[in-house]
Amino acid sequence: MKRADLVEQIFTKKSFLCVGLDADISRVPRHLFDTHEDPIFEFNKQIIDATAPYCVAYKPNTAFYEAQGVAGWISLQKTIEYIPKTHFIIADAKRGDIGNTSRQYAKAFFESMPCDAVTVAPYMGEDSVAPFLEFDNKWVIVLGLTSNKGSSDFQFLKDTQSGKLFYQEVLEKTQAWGSIDNLMYVVGATHPEKFEEIRQIIPDHFLLVPGVGAQGGDLDGLVKYGKNKEIGLLVNSSRGIIFADEGPQFAEAAAEAAQSLSKRMAAYF
Amino acid sequence: MKRADLVEQIFTKKSFLCVGLDADISRVPRHLFDTHEDPIFEFNKQIIDATAPYCVAYKPNTAFYEAQGVAGWISLQKTIEYIPKTHFIIADAKRGDIGNTSRQYAKAFFESMPCDAVTVAPYMGEDSVAPFLEFDNKWVIVLGLTSNKGSSDFQFLKDTQSGKLFYQEVLEKTQAWGSIDNLMYVVGATHPEKFEEIRQIIPDHFLLVPGVGAQGGDLDGLVKYGKNKEIGLLVNSSRGIIFADEGPQFAEAAAEAAQSLSKRMAAYF
Repeated sequence: MKRADLVEQIFTKKSFLCVGLDADISRVPRHLFDTHEDPIFEFNKQIIDATAPYCVAYKPNTAFYEAQGVAGWISLQKTIEYIPKTHFIIADAKRGDIGNTSRQYAKAFFESMPCDAVTVAPYMGEDSVAPFLEFDNKWVIVLGLTSNKGSSDFQFLKDTQSGKLFYQEVLEKTQAWGSIDNLMYVVGATHPEKFEEIRQIIPDHFLLVPGVGAQGGDLDGLVKYGKNKEIGLLVNSSRGIIFADEGPQFAEAAAEAAQSLSKRMAAYF
Repeated sequence: MKRADLVEQIFTKKSFLCVGLDADISRVPRHLFDTHEDPIFEFNKQIIDATAPYCVAYKPNTAFYEAQGVAGWISLQKTIEYIPKTHFIIADAKRGDIGNTSRQYAKAFFESMPCDAVTVAPYMGEDSVAPFLEFDNKWVIVLGLTSNKGSSDFQFLKDTQSGKLFYQEVLEKTQAWGSIDNLMYVVGATHPEKFEEIRQIIPDHFLLVPGVGAQGGDLDGLVKYGKNKEIGLLVNSSRGIIFADEGPQFAEAAAEAAQSLSKRMAAYF
């Protein structure tokens, strides 16, 4: 997907919501197991049907599918193929390896599956990221400042030479590897105070923001400092939407949760 | 696998060779496509049969399987199940995410597949690594200093407070999260001059060493400074062994290449 198409969708819907498809099998409603051969796909299908009007992106988290082995990978493939082409599709896979290997991961998510973007860990540097950038209208979403507690273990180390924190170094250096048309960054909602400073480094890039909802991040704070003229944010909610209700009414509850969050988002336009 | 069993195997075979199963479909011998429904699995099966006497570990690289979609994941599962239980099995997957997600990756490789170890990127910190350590006799192999060119982009940043390089910080800090019985580190053979200093930080941990062969790493240098009293090294070769010959004699050629490398290793005992 081109940036212009993503931006247009955001302004048309007045929403920058990304729904995280973390289909944890232990929380998928039980009745789907009695009635469907692939309950995970059926769950996702109903979630997608119910939430599509309120969101602009979907983010399947590969871990929840891989945990189910081959069957899970089949559910993942079917889910990604089911997502409407109007929506931006993010494989939240946190991949990254030496060049010849990252090229294979790029094939996995951009050719074998029709994803628009894949999340990539920056630890291994440029040749681990670059192969993902060779695909037209496909995106790399580099981990910048993550939402979890462990983000403080290494991301805040301060480089002696530049005086910058490690995650700032990542934002600065990786920018040169792509453009605002094929690079985004993960910045966790649990660090709202950092968005202002992050926007000084990368004013124009889209940010994928996890951590609103179950992880406790604050929407107001991150929008205040994180929004740019194209909005420039994809705010993700996973558990808060897809497991809003774990019974037979799960899809309606997910629609309500997504609508509620998107209404809050509309107020920022 | 327990550390004692791995060490025993190494001393019995006088080999610390790990064979990397990077089954690049474009290099798998053509005749296998005519004769087998799952040519990637058949390729791996013959490679494993041919090299098992000379190596102590196998390391399938998940990217090469994921690039083939569901069929690839099936080949991966079959390959991992085929590897003899005598051998240490490493899923070279470079995973790592927030705690609830890393737990799913751990299930994928330790429950859904019978791997002994999985490689993990440290960027997201402790809660991204810890879930892998909750499994008995299973291992995390944390990226320390990688073998690729991009390793210099971030791994050599120097922390102001500790005066340590970023990869040194990773080695120091992550040690406390596990023990020499469930933690190893990736240290690339392309940095042989670093092994001495790395052994000062982690004298007793096993190191998984990629980069010998196609990537140009030097075995003598890394063994000189990297070996400890239990050997403490798993030196990986992928392309140099599995694609030693890309014709019908590929398995014999792989056996020769593996035997040749293991003979060089025997000299260090």
